[in-house]
Amino acid sequence: MIQRNVLNSDRHIVLMKYSSWFAGLDGVDSILISNGGENAIDKAFFYATGADEGIFEGSSVIVTPDSERARMYVYTLEEQSARKTSHDVIPAGSQAQMKENISRALKDKKRVGINFSSMTLEMYNDLRSVLPDTQFVDVSGNILNSRMIKTDDEIKRLREAARISSEALPSIIEHFKEGMTEKELAADIVYEMMKAGADGPSFESIVCFGSNASIPHHLPESRKLKRGDFVLMDYGAVYRRYCSDNTRTVVFGKAEEKQKEIYSIVYEAQKKAMDMIRDGVNGRDVNSKALEVIDDTEYRGKLMHGIGHGIGLEVHDHHALGSSDFTLRKGMAITDEPGIYIPGYGGVRIEDDLIVKEDGFSLITNQPSKDLIEVS
Amino acid sequence: MIQRNVLNSDRHIVLMKYSSWFAGLDGVDSILISNGGENAIDKAFFYATGADEGIFEGSSVIVTPDSERARMYVYTLEEQSARKTSHDVIPAGSQAQMKENISRALKDKKRVGINFSSMTLEMYNDLRSVLPDTQFVDVSGNILNSRMIKTDDEIKRLREAARISSEALPSIIEHFKEGMTEKELAADIVYEMMKAGADGPSFESIVCFGSNASIPHHLPESRKLKRGDFVLMDYGAVYRRYCSDNTRTVVFGKAEEKQKEIYSIVYEAQKKAMDMIRDGVNGRDVNSKALEVIDDTEYRGKLMHGIGHGIGLEVHDHHALGSSDFTLRKGMAITDEPGIYIPGYGGVRIEDDLIVKEDGFSLITNQPSKDLIEVS
Repeated sequence: MIQRNVLNSDRHIVLMKYSSWFAGLDGVDSILISNGGENAIDKAFFYATGADEGIFEGSSVIVTPDSERARMYVYTLEEQSARKTSHDVIPAGSQAQMKENISRALKDKKRVGINFSSMTLEMYNDLRSVLPDTQFVDVSGNILNSRMIKTDDEIKRLREAARISSEALPSIIEHFKEGMTEKELAADIVYEMMKAGADGPSFESIVCFGSNASIPHHLPESRKLKRGDFVLMDYGAVYRRYCSDNTRTVVFGKAEEKQKEIYSIVYEAQKKAMDMIRDGVNGRDVNSKALEVIDDTEYRGKLMHGIGHGIGLEVHDHHALGSSDFTLRKGMAITDEPGIYIPGYGGVRIEDDLIVKEDGFSLITNQPSKDLIEVS
Repeated sequence: MIQRNVLNSDRHIVLMKYSSWFAGLDGVDSILISNGGENAIDKAFFYATGADEGIFEGSSVIVTPDSERARMYVYTLEEQSARKTSHDVIPAGSQAQMKENISRALKDKKRVGINFSSMTLEMYNDLRSVLPDTQFVDVSGNILNSRMIKTDDEIKRLREAARISSEALPSIIEHFKEGMTEKELAADIVYEMMKAGADGPSFESIVCFGSNASIPHHLPESRKLKRGDFVLMDYGAVYRRYCSDNTRTVVFGKAEEKQKEIYSIVYEAQKKAMDMIRDGVNGRDVNSKALEVIDDTEYRGKLMHGIGHGIGLEVHDHHALGSSDFTLRKGMAITDEPGIYIPGYGGVRIEDDLIVKEDGFSLITNQPSKDLIEVS
């Protein structure tokens, strides 16, 4: 019963969002959001339905601006999961029946909104084959604008995901052991997050020992932990479909001066950037601030990625700060994650999650240490 | 150094595949495979490059039928990861530079192959904006045909993924404890697989206690384990990007007769279907065989999903047996997973992974028990 109540509350939050999806779209009174296979999942499907359970490959949802409910077109396989939401459910037993159901629902519509940022060319061609006379209109911009500003319920979930991943750190560090592999530590990270309440990891954890820490997207392998190694851990939790994403870099054993120096520069870059965050600031300026701190040192040029990105139903929920020109708005959830990477030596990244507020921000991960942690 | 050797061997396997991607495509001498964001990852990118490390969002690869190497278009963020492969690497520091690089590489081509099954409408529109005069041709069928038949190297990885997930079962069962939640068991499953060598879970594990076992895609929640409960666990490992996918259903405590009966029917359905598997058989007939076994009992209609699907770089790598009309071929990797689901009571699914052979199959997960396991 608790779950049902939660879902009801989701539905009301969802309802608020539907009407904004139609903004500026002349003559469009239906939007079709379709999931593809496992690499073409449209998170907008879950945004629109609030479904807590189910995978819904090949399922669709149709929303209208004025209705109390959405219509979920699902396979019988997931009919029970769909019925746990408060939406109308139209089950199909086969692909042919699914196409027939969608076609029947939309055949009288001249213009239908779809999500260009997720629908594949193959899905689009399939859709055109059953609705040859319909004009399809891109609603990805409207959905993105809606998803960027989080509701109170979404912020609660993001806070919980952030709490889980950042509070797991002390337990994760207890697993450190000379000679352990990056993959073993990656296993411990997922385990500690799930014990703390995560539904799962929000992405395959990045665990780098020693010089591997210079590779931003290094995936854990059999490298063994040695005294004096940097340990860079970039990982996150999923809580009720919402993601956290944090990075902590520590040293196993005694840190040398250079390690401490790099850490303190990255820490300062993160802080300086963070202090700028508030409603109305351009993400590009926040990025420039972090770059400025790093490029004023001998590590000029050693940060080669954007300073952060949106988080939400996806780990990379929207634009990266730095690579896009966009204004931070109250209710956005973003990461702040500068780094310095020195091939052959190692690297440091510090990443936190925060919610943009009118006059500042709310940090939802735990505050990182100002000084580089040395794990004895 | 070990990793580099492995990657070299991947490259040779990959080379074999490129030429078949061009079969029947008149005037096409370049194929562009582009990754989108985290929900628009094209696994064909990893198939084409053999890259063991890296995420490569927004990266592309261009292959030609006659070249010794592919060309990887990546962001500087992942340049180091890309250079661990044996391909040519063209790094970009910004989206504008990435577009410029791709456009320069393809501007003299009249026709270019792309993967319709993965490219989104947004990516396609972006591509058309920089290459307005190019005709884009769908190569998804050729890539699918190539990916369906696994090479020896792919089979080795699939076998290892299957070994990891199925051999983890006894350790997973040791965690069973009255009152534990589905989520806690899900954490144990991932942990045991990763300790056994998995790079991660191949999907969010399905863990169902008691009546939840009637929901095929139920995601673990706070339901507590009770004596007499069905425990349905559907989970898999990733090993060097390749997936396993197996389901085991056991009873915590003493099973009642009805539980044993349902299990034995599902077991028989799985076996009967499996016995049909060999090169040349239609997947639909294998599916019908399993359905026939179940529909001959009082549980008629209680299997409402296909009997299996391809596995590989994706958990659902290609067509489902049953919903598609296709012929099993030597070298395909598929699952065999019938089930019976009774809302309000529970359900049983038994799932194994196998490689299709000329005259039969090779089971790569551990043989399930003929009798329902009762965990004391």
